[in-house]
Amino acid sequence: MQISQFTIPDDFIDLGVGQPESTLLPLELFQRASDHALQGPREILQYGINSGDDYFRSSLSGFLTKYYAQPVEPQSLFVTNGISQALAMICTLFTKPGDTIFVEEPTYFYALDIFRDYGLNMVSVPVDEAGLITEELESLLRKHKPVFIYTIPAFQNPSGATLTLSRREKLIELAEVFNVLIVADEVYQLLNYTTLPPKPLGCFETDKVLSLGSFAKILAPGLRLGWIQAAPVLLERIANYGAIVSGGGLNPFTSAIVRSSIELGLQETHLEFLKKTYKERSRALVQALREHSFTVSDVAGGYFVWLKLSQDTHKLQQKAQANKVDFKPGYLFSSQGELKNCLRLCFAFYPEDKLIEGVKRLALVIRG
Amino acid sequence: MQISQFTIPDDFIDLGVGQPESTLLPLELFQRASDHALQGPREILQYGINSGDDYFRSSLSGFLTKYYAQPVEPQSLFVTNGISQALAMICTLFTKPGDTIFVEEPTYFYALDIFRDYGLNMVSVPVDEAGLITEELESLLRKHKPVFIYTIPAFQNPSGATLTLSRREKLIELAEVFNVLIVADEVYQLLNYTTLPPKPLGCFETDKVLSLGSFAKILAPGLRLGWIQAAPVLLERIANYGAIVSGGGLNPFTSAIVRSSIELGLQETHLEFLKKTYKERSRALVQALREHSFTVSDVAGGYFVWLKLSQDTHKLQQKAQANKVDFKPGYLFSSQGELKNCLRLCFAFYPEDKLIEGVKRLALVIRG
Repeated sequence: MQISQFTIPDDFIDLGVGQPESTLLPLELFQRASDHALQGPREILQYGINSGDDYFRSSLSGFLTKYYAQPVEPQSLFVTNGISQALAMICTLFTKPGDTIFVEEPTYFYALDIFRDYGLNMVSVPVDEAGLITEELESLLRKHKPVFIYTIPAFQNPSGATLTLSRREKLIELAEVFNVLIVADEVYQLLNYTTLPPKPLGCFETDKVLSLGSFAKILAPGLRLGWIQAAPVLLERIANYGAIVSGGGLNPFTSAIVRSSIELGLQETHLEFLKKTYKERSRALVQALREHSFTVSDVAGGYFVWLKLSQDTHKLQQKAQANKVDFKPGYLFSSQGELKNCLRLCFAFYPEDKLIEGVKRLALVIRG
Repeated sequence: MQISQFTIPDDFIDLGVGQPESTLLPLELFQRASDHALQGPREILQYGINSGDDYFRSSLSGFLTKYYAQPVEPQSLFVTNGISQALAMICTLFTKPGDTIFVEEPTYFYALDIFRDYGLNMVSVPVDEAGLITEELESLLRKHKPVFIYTIPAFQNPSGATLTLSRREKLIELAEVFNVLIVADEVYQLLNYTTLPPKPLGCFETDKVLSLGSFAKILAPGLRLGWIQAAPVLLERIANYGAIVSGGGLNPFTSAIVRSSIELGLQETHLEFLKKTYKERSRALVQALREHSFTVSDVAGGYFVWLKLSQDTHKLQQKAQANKVDFKPGYLFSSQGELKNCLRLCFAFYPEDKLIEGVKRLALVIRG
């Protein structure tokens, strides 16, 4: 019987898995936080207020204000079941089948599956090392009328790119001019290993941004707890979603426990531990890749390293699997079936020795 | 600041609120269950398997097999965030805007809001004291081609009616013949106060039923935890929903805690306590209504009493509120804006003395 999404044989190293290693999941933190939260009040078990528990949103706003280094008001936050659920809800409320949206090329591949479920037509906007190319975006906005632009502005999945401040300003300006929403998946914003990334898109003064955050990467994916940060006028529309009005706000019970983890200082300590751990892992992965003559940039945050090779990585995958190593081939991250010579590696799921061994196996397959 | 969906002044009695009283929410049970669950394994915090934690589904199948008095296999269960979320997900996967669905008249009013969000065209099928009238359904099926029929077969919200076994058999037969899905909201199945209701629709041998269950009424609404019971072929389609594949199965953390509550026997004890409590409350409400000369049937389960008056209950509501009592007017439960002379009362939210006082205030307003 199985609890988690993947089980991988012990002698196999799957650098494609974009999840935290299970040993990094803070069970002891939850023992303390749930002891604290379950002192009550009893209302944490009741149908929750539509936007999410006010006390939780207040704690979350304090936490984000500190780590974003930007003011975040509780009334700009709406509690979700994580980013995937938030994307689905946004598609339900803001789109209809046949509508056009813009996605980055490359982009998070499972988001493409969500958008396909909603019958959306996807146009891709290229990304370079400074993030989404706003010059290209502008010319595409003259040709198409998208409902929203889906972007991952910090430490992008899969490219690792972070949108510069000037491009952020340009993006917001274009959204205002062309009256298009930005759905910003800011899930890696808090996982910086050097300097802070620029101001999150959710913190710009506009009613064009829905910024999605999550506890999946900073605490535990199994909570299914996240938030949307947006102008209250946008959040009101979401709070009136039939499924929310009927079932009440999302995840009140888990919200109460995570609120305790913030108020007891456990979330901060855990985030610092994760940043230290992932920084070390990212450096080990980059160093191992360079030792095997791969060209790779320094990692500034997030989970991933993106490689460009001179061969078809989908074809390469079978050979890699035979050598007990795996990765995510580039075509998955393209809404257009491109990026065939790229691949994504994740450094969050394995300790350093496994990352080094994984690169060794991979190099053998690529060079061999 | 607010945690739960409603706050009601102390001197007001709102018999319209369809929620458990907060004092009935078992905080102590969750202290024990979470202590147990948080012993590990750590994987309860990881991205969960798409259909839901196998160990949890196994415990749930045992619990349902006992209380349904019908075999329920783990592989026929899919974990959800409760019925409202399940309805939204089913609408996304099985319908497109403009599609027709059938709903009962009367039906659960918030479900109507969910269906409206998905742009569905609703045709109503009347309900009598034996549930959905299958003879009427048959003639409607000859005229329309609905994607699904939404029904609440046991202790219906709001009418309290339970679909008889012979009508259940007829309903399944019609679904097979006309190739239409049944979305069965079986949330009150486990809250019987006299005899067991007939076999749940989810336990019939067919691939036409999606049966929705929830811990909201038997444990706590704030968990946002429920299940779909259906043929594996239908569940497979749901497990491939983009938002599930991306975020993993729904609510792994909460599932683990509720699994402990089942395995420690706490869920059974709590269910028996609730059934005893609600039975007493329902009898107090019915007796008070009869003492004030209202015609009302005995309550066999669920949360509600449905009254038919000889006046417009929407107009009555303002007078009631001025007399510090409230109810849900009938028109809310009609997809056609009918049922204007009906109203719904709930006996789950108040202890007996408040129910009696509420009826007294209501009688004064209706008779006065």
